[in-house]
Amino acid sequence: MKTIPSYSALTRLFVLVVLLALGACVHAQTDPLPSWNDGPAKQAIVTFVEKVTTEGSPDFVPPAERIATFDNDGTLWPSHPMYTQLAFALDRIKELAPQHPEWKTTQPFKAVLDNDMKALAEAGEKGLVELVMASHAGMSTTEFEKIVTDWFGTARHPRFKRPYTELAYQPMLELLTYLQANGFKTYIVSGGGIEFMRPMTESVYGVPPEQVIGSSIETKYEMQDGKPVLMRLPKIHFIDDKAGKPVGINMFIGRRPVAAFGNSDGDRQMLEWTGAGGGARLMMLVFHDDARREYAYGPANGLPDTRFGTFSPSLMDEAKKKGWVVISMKDDWKRIFAFEP
Amino acid sequence: MKTIPSYSALTRLFVLVVLLALGACVHAQTDPLPSWNDGPAKQAIVTFVEKVTTEGSPDFVPPAERIATFDNDGTLWPSHPMYTQLAFALDRIKELAPQHPEWKTTQPFKAVLDNDMKALAEAGEKGLVELVMASHAGMSTTEFEKIVTDWFGTARHPRFKRPYTELAYQPMLELLTYLQANGFKTYIVSGGGIEFMRPMTESVYGVPPEQVIGSSIETKYEMQDGKPVLMRLPKIHFIDDKAGKPVGINMFIGRRPVAAFGNSDGDRQMLEWTGAGGGARLMMLVFHDDARREYAYGPANGLPDTRFGTFSPSLMDEAKKKGWVVISMKDDWKRIFAFEP
Repeated sequence: MKTIPSYSALTRLFVLVVLLALGACVHAQTDPLPSWNDGPAKQAIVTFVEKVTTEGSPDFVPPAERIATFDNDGTLWPSHPMYTQLAFALDRIKELAPQHPEWKTTQPFKAVLDNDMKALAEAGEKGLVELVMASHAGMSTTEFEKIVTDWFGTARHPRFKRPYTELAYQPMLELLTYLQANGFKTYIVSGGGIEFMRPMTESVYGVPPEQVIGSSIETKYEMQDGKPVLMRLPKIHFIDDKAGKPVGINMFIGRRPVAAFGNSDGDRQMLEWTGAGGGARLMMLVFHDDARREYAYGPANGLPDTRFGTFSPSLMDEAKKKGWVVISMKDDWKRIFAFEP
Repeated sequence: MKTIPSYSALTRLFVLVVLLALGACVHAQTDPLPSWNDGPAKQAIVTFVEKVTTEGSPDFVPPAERIATFDNDGTLWPSHPMYTQLAFALDRIKELAPQHPEWKTTQPFKAVLDNDMKALAEAGEKGLVELVMASHAGMSTTEFEKIVTDWFGTARHPRFKRPYTELAYQPMLELLTYLQANGFKTYIVSGGGIEFMRPMTESVYGVPPEQVIGSSIETKYEMQDGKPVLMRLPKIHFIDDKAGKPVGINMFIGRRPVAAFGNSDGDRQMLEWTGAGGGARLMMLVFHDDARREYAYGPANGLPDTRFGTFSPSLMDEAKKKGWVVISMKDDWKRIFAFEP
């Protein structure tokens, strides 16, 4: 004889299903870092945040002092096959070329117009500065903001075929949100141009313009038709990279961060400066070891040495010596981009 | 026959007294600017704040864009008989003099050691820069912070015989608090040194270090005994005055303020820049016309021309033409300092 489950058995089953569903739900809600695999990197973050936000803990940090600084290129979004801002500069040079017939025969502009990456590389840092000056100066700050915003609206990453603004690393977005929810003021401290980043940092990272520190060129206040403008001059004002990062942090924030996140030799001094403060500190480096989902480069750990985002063996040594946490993109991140299935 | 008031009459009286007391209380609580006399300046502030914070109003400004910038010297505290930072520099020169015997015979140092204000004035801006470099550079940022903090602890204003930090103008403190309570981010944008102000702005004005913009000298990151320090170099990095103020605002904040407060020709461009944005704006200038309670100087309105905090007739003209509100310290402020009876 077939047994019909009793009403109470059905109820129990129903309750069990509901509880399981709720449990899954609660678990999803309480894991602030769902795109991170369980492991030492994720653990280090959670332990640090709990320590510094627990009142009465010896490591408690008052909210006003919860400053966290993030490098941008290679830390929050890709820096390959080239820095996003370099892609912007090259596009802009091509757009301006009709007004500059001399560029057809002058380096480094000729290299850009010929798509000659070898000649471009040979132009070195001096060539790069020339490109930036030609593409980033000579307009007002308001005009430049519009040029950058328009470019972000149309430009696509050559490999991922998506707007650059969709390439923010999902685990790092979760980390930013987690820190912000715990009273941290999150800053971007990038070698990139401050006015190149500001038009997108709020919508992409939840970081307002006043929390963006970067390299800058000089601007000059002047009146045009009775209205004040800030004109962008072809003159470097500040390079926010390497030893410039602690300088920029001190200038803009005036406090030492308690947490700092980077990915390359350009971030070494920012992590040193952060780590040299007293009390609990968190220093992390994103290591690009996932050629399948993103890129793999070093030269640390025997990975290829590329021009963008060098992670040297000596940086890896310092990280180990000082207890900085190295994040393996391959092992620590469940997914890298939000658009992954 | 004497009448005994009925119970209900007593109750009514009691209720009336309580209501009157409550009314006085409520009134005191609802006036956010008790040290301001009722008049056009106070009215302009209240009207502006109500307009930009009323949702649905055509002038509504989202909280994130409520940026208000304040000059410091002469706007939030006195700039007479000399800028507070100059008083600090002179004290510091005297303190360092035993290590610099050559100063006894070299200007502008000799003038400082001899208290010869005439010779000091003759040394001009070049002399001033030399004094600042000798007194503000050559130590780490941490050491400088301690030097400044110690000085604020012991130095006294020559006329008011109180610590400089007690000389913040009470009406401006109320204005800062009122704006902060209405979701404004209040910034200091001063020609003074950024690292001279930061040790005191939070406790005095409720303005955290990351909301202080000022002039700066260069700093250099270096390792000392394995610990990173930022050394202060005798080289000017940025002058945050006059046309430098909009430049500094754009560099540090990356947004245009909706309200700006100053007191001198050094603030003119900041107010122009603020006023040139769209929507409701508030631009105000503190005018020092109260020699009895503080100081009186111009040369606007025929007041004496002094070296510190020049308010020129042409600034007064521009204020009138553009609808900037000029605050008369004599007429608009009920009291100037918190310590007044």
